[in-house]
Amino acid sequence: MHSKWQLGPDRYFDPNPAQRRVARELYETVANLPVVSPHGHVDPRLFADKDATFGSPADLLIIPDHYVFRMLYSQGIPLEDVGVPRIDGGPVEQDHRRIWQIFADNFYLFRGTPSGIWLTQELIEVLGVEEKLNGETAQAIYDQIEGKLATPEFRPRALFDRFNIEVMSTTDAATDTLEAHKAIRESGWGGDIRPAFRPDAVVNLLTEGWRENIDKLSEVSGVDVISYEAFVRAIEQRRAFFKSMGATSTDHAAISAYTAELEAFEADAIFQRALRGEAAEEDAHRFTAHMVMEFARMSIEDGLTMQFHVGAVYNYNRGLFGRFGRDKGCDIPTTSEFTYNLYSLLNKYGNDPRLMLIVFTLDESTYARELATLAGHYPAMRLGPPWWFQDSLNGMARYFDQVMETAGLYNTAGFNDDTRAFLSIPARHDVWRRASANWVAGLVVRGVVDEEDAQEMILDLAYRLAKQAYKLG
Amino acid sequence: MHSKWQLGPDRYFDPNPAQRRVARELYETVANLPVVSPHGHVDPRLFADKDATFGSPADLLIIPDHYVFRMLYSQGIPLEDVGVPRIDGGPVEQDHRRIWQIFADNFYLFRGTPSGIWLTQELIEVLGVEEKLNGETAQAIYDQIEGKLATPEFRPRALFDRFNIEVMSTTDAATDTLEAHKAIRESGWGGDIRPAFRPDAVVNLLTEGWRENIDKLSEVSGVDVISYEAFVRAIEQRRAFFKSMGATSTDHAAISAYTAELEAFEADAIFQRALRGEAAEEDAHRFTAHMVMEFARMSIEDGLTMQFHVGAVYNYNRGLFGRFGRDKGCDIPTTSEFTYNLYSLLNKYGNDPRLMLIVFTLDESTYARELATLAGHYPAMRLGPPWWFQDSLNGMARYFDQVMETAGLYNTAGFNDDTRAFLSIPARHDVWRRASANWVAGLVVRGVVDEEDAQEMILDLAYRLAKQAYKLG
Amino acid sequence: MHSKWQLGPDRYFDPNPAQRRVARELYETVANLPVVSPHGHVDPRLFADKDATFGSPADLLIIPDHYVFRMLYSQGIPLEDVGVPRIDGGPVEQDHRRIWQIFADNFYLFRGTPSGIWLTQELIEVLGVEEKLNGETAQAIYDQIEGKLATPEFRPRALFDRFNIEVMSTTDAATDTLEAHKAIRESGWGGDIRPAFRPDAVVNLLTEGWRENIDKLSEVSGVDVISYEAFVRAIEQRRAFFKSMGATSTDHAAISAYTAELEAFEADAIFQRALRGEAAEEDAHRFTAHMVMEFARMSIEDGLTMQFHVGAVYNYNRGLFGRFGRDKGCDIPTTSEFTYNLYSLLNKYGNDPRLMLIVFTLDESTYARELATLAGHYPAMRLGPPWWFQDSLNGMARYFDQVMETAGLYNTAGFNDDTRAFLSIPARHDVWRRASANWVAGLVVRGVVDEEDAQEMILDLAYRLAKQAYKLG
Repeated sequence: MHSKWQLGPDRYFDPNPAQRRVARELYETVANLPVVSPHGHVDPRLFADKDATFGSPADLLIIPDHYVFRMLYSQGIPLEDVGVPRIDGGPVEQDHRRIWQIFADNFYLFRGTPSGIWLTQELIEVLGVEEKLNGETAQAIYDQIEGKLATPEFRPRALFDRFNIEVMSTTDAATDTLEAHKAIRESGWGGDIRPAFRPDAVVNLLTEGWRENIDKLSEVSGVDVISYEAFVRAIEQRRAFFKSMGATSTDHAAISAYTAELEAFEADAIFQRALRGEAAEEDAHRFTAHMVMEFARMSIEDGLTMQFHVGAVYNYNRGLFGRFGRDKGCDIPTTSEFTYNLYSLLNKYGNDPRLMLIVFTLDESTYARELATLAGHYPAMRLGPPWWFQDSLNGMARYFDQVMETAGLYNTAGFNDDTRAFLSIPARHDVWRRASANWVAGLVVRGVVDEEDAQEMILDLAYRLAKQAYKLG
Repeated sequence: MHSKWQLGPDRYFDPNPAQRRVARELYETVANLPVVSPHGHVDPRLFADKDATFGSPADLLIIPDHYVFRMLYSQGIPLEDVGVPRIDGGPVEQDHRRIWQIFADNFYLFRGTPSGIWLTQELIEVLGVEEKLNGETAQAIYDQIEGKLATPEFRPRALFDRFNIEVMSTTDAATDTLEAHKAIRESGWGGDIRPAFRPDAVVNLLTEGWRENIDKLSEVSGVDVISYEAFVRAIEQRRAFFKSMGATSTDHAAISAYTAELEAFEADAIFQRALRGEAAEEDAHRFTAHMVMEFARMSIEDGLTMQFHVGAVYNYNRGLFGRFGRDKGCDIPTTSEFTYNLYSLLNKYGNDPRLMLIVFTLDESTYARELATLAGHYPAMRLGPPWWFQDSLNGMARYFDQVMETAGLYNTAGFNDDTRAFLSIPARHDVWRRASANWVAGLVVRGVVDEEDAQEMILDLAYRLAKQAYKLG
Repeated sequence: MHSKWQLGPDRYFDPNPAQRRVARELYETVANLPVVSPHGHVDPRLFADKDATFGSPADLLIIPDHYVFRMLYSQGIPLEDVGVPRIDGGPVEQDHRRIWQIFADNFYLFRGTPSGIWLTQELIEVLGVEEKLNGETAQAIYDQIEGKLATPEFRPRALFDRFNIEVMSTTDAATDTLEAHKAIRESGWGGDIRPAFRPDAVVNLLTEGWRENIDKLSEVSGVDVISYEAFVRAIEQRRAFFKSMGATSTDHAAISAYTAELEAFEADAIFQRALRGEAAEEDAHRFTAHMVMEFARMSIEDGLTMQFHVGAVYNYNRGLFGRFGRDKGCDIPTTSEFTYNLYSLLNKYGNDPRLMLIVFTLDESTYARELATLAGHYPAMRLGPPWWFQDSLNGMARYFDQVMETAGLYNTAGFNDDTRAFLSIPARHDVWRRASANWVAGLVVRGVVDEEDAQEMILDLAYRLAKQAYKLG
């Protein structure tokens, strides 16, 4: 006999009764607000076709989710065994019930982790599972989920509505023609799904396939990208196109936050070397640093909110990368530095309130030292919410603790889920809303803010700041 | 109708009833102890003339306080609009009621920040404001404060007495003739206000105006500063003068904690280059590193407590610096390193118990790793309280958390407010006393220390450690 | 009159009644489990002779414990005054009662420190002291302890049994012939004490006495160590010998985590330079980086768990080191970096589940950023418990906070006490078990894990993970 699997109504709140009561009251005022998801990686094709489905339970929850298979891999389970496709098309497990069994046998690994929290909430609240997932209950739960996924209520558009998503942004390559977005807009379906402009694959000169990406950029922009000047024109053309398709933001990732302007002739010399396949690492480094400056200029001109995600060493595990490709759980954060690295950018554009620059870090040691102090001074800068490995209950608590006193709440950008796991969106926003309510409640019971202020703050955290920072208002 | 604005008697304490009760009991034993303010930036001229006043409410709380206008600026409010004077004397807002209105309209930005806490306490406890400050109540509150400031009870000396300040140290340039301090001493008024010796402007070879500062140093010391040897003599002369005027400490700021001794001929070669206006950045870096060693030697000789503030990049926002000058909210912390950088100094002087070196950081990642371990070993070293951006409730909690286990309470230096905002002194010390009481109470309810030890610890934190570290006993 | 000195039954638990109740229940299920001590520095000679004793109270608790005399030294008490032996045999305090009096007079320095917690528990629970230690009670307590230490119940083997130690590992030089371990095994006594292989003194080419250590290595291994190839053979011979003596692990310390493989001819060129006494700092740095890779290879082959302790600058205080030698409280942590430094090692061996690599840090800023993300991905890597200065209540709380969400509990290695103070072992494990119970209880009352999972987690933390990681099962 298994006891019913359930979520506590006061979960994630401090156990102190006074704080818990205030947290609950604050949370209740925002629990049912629409979800604003201004940055994420959900595949828009799920919504382009009204009959699209999520596939099997393993397709839905395991095979595409690097948060999940990363943890299984860390305990010695080969990615092949959980069906992650190989680049060379070599054999991987095809039996989704066996994949599911491995997942269930090892579900204990997720104890106390954000993935454990999200998956539990997805299973219970979205999929209606009533028994705790483990090796014993695995197959019965598989049956149950499989049955649900076959029904119209569990198609992506239906869940988009059920999840009460007011607006969701995807993240799309600069060369993307946004066919899926067009299809969504033309379908007559009311879901508000927008693209975001992410040009990394044409900006980072050492990305695998960069030369082909430039050719594609020429093709889709109608600009023959044979020079730095043409490159900038093509980028601007794509931004305008994205904006016409509803985009309100761009997204840029880099290992370091280094920014530094090049003279146009230098930028072109580097660009020409890259076209000849001769770009060195230093070229790529300087070109990225320069383009970040350019993107700030463009954002001032076209009004797109600019996101800057700093600090991951991508594809760290070369063996796994060679066998499975990108986004397979082997990106590792490294030390970041913002004070010196953002100096050029902030001195040139940071005082301009037309710029909305949202900075994200994986290096929490920069929160109180650099990011909160910069965001707390520059009109153009906001600090993004805890990102990736820090998008967790403790990560949020550390963020509130270390950022808010110095940056001030109003120099932060609310929440975004940054997820490719569509099913996890309600859980992720719910965790943020609960963590936010708990933080504000902590301020109330300690006499730092009064209840009137607290009510404004929870609305800002749960809903308003994200809309404002991403100009989705 | 507005509800009465008030401060909770148990504010900033943990909501757990057991911890709160112990915290309150501990706090009550120190709440009314005299304030020892061994380091700060209050202008001594406020006390030199018995009839000096604070000016308007905007003069008192907004225009000179970079904590305040920094936050307003971060949301796009130009410094000109809140009356911050321009270097070129260009036009800035002169209507203090309009400045106050902007401040009140945006007072919500300070929710959850230390500035919000201090300002609220200043308004309620010092100025007797009874309605919450916002756009609506702004002008009535202005009237009320303006009225108070016109009374004798709100002159600086009267507030010094009301604040129960036992002793307060200012911070004064090496070239300062301490006229205001002389005037205070000669006035017959009983307030104990002392200078502290801060020679940065003659030590940092790249400070704007360094050459003029050296001339001034020659003039005030009577030593013709034409060589490194004369420079040291002049410095020693000034230290003796400051000591004769009541100083018990010196203060030194640097971007990095680098210390390294030069041979006298090297120091002189650098100094000569500086006199000729030819000092390079590396010269300045090495000269500062050397002088920090020299200041330790001098402190051993003359017994002045030595403060070392490390890690701020001053005047980061060049545009704002050009328009408004120093201390206008655009100093940004950077990474600090102490283990290697203090190696020379600690190996030469760290074992000498005659040296009292108090180190401050803006880089909390060094707390548990470097500073607590160094302070927990070297007899000459104490760790200063959370500084600047970290002088906050959470900053204090992180300090207690990360420092105390390894450094030990008795290798820390109590509290100092480091403020130029005289009115904030009671609030800042009160926050520290409450945070301290709450920390010690947490140890009591967790069974780490008993109540007898707790009582000693709160007295040390609130009063005794600062007096001892600054030799004000 | 003194009140009875005692330990609260709920000490170190959160004061919230709900969390405290769960913590206590969890703790009670593991409080009496046997102690698994898989890494430490207790002298095995204490157990080789059944009649060995601990000497005087000062011999037991002060003279050999650098945690203790470090704190006394930081307040200006010379090491000579507390009997720490000088290298040159010069005079130090010989009167152990006077040493004890200094310790007792200054016992207040340990308020709120882990040493204070351990010492208090040792005095009360192990030694039966009933009055709080201070200057007044010092001599009476000395009498009492001296009396106990003279009885058979307080000999090392008797306490080993009383402490319920299931297995304990010492740490032994590669050149050690393990005579004490042989004597223990041959004595017929049932205590399970094992060596661990620590080759630092032959690997670090710049260790004082390296050349003599190599000669000793030749002697004990029977391999004439005249080349890099012979060096590796000798190391492998010693590992096999240690393994035959019960070792299940090796231990390696380095300032940085740098790993990089050399070609055999390069390694030999460096080794030959070292044999000629001509090794440069860069040689030593590269040789260590290479040998860490080699040790991973060997661990895959012989199955010994590999420990890697990173980040201490040893013997920082040169004066003290010259007078008193190693391990005298003057090792200071420095910044560590793992993402780039472990790149070579993890890319070559990290995917091999036969490797069990346990990494320790003194730089907590790497917890969430680097170590948790690496341990949460690589099958070969586990994260060791909070080490040295971080082996404390707050250090543990920060570790749980910053590591567990991303690494996952099952990529950590349980607890080890790493102590040379045998008497502190029960207290250290008790602190870990209480801190663990409190952490898990926090997850329960916040609804993150259920009670069933919590029960498994506390067993893993207190007992199972350490056994498994160190292959002591």
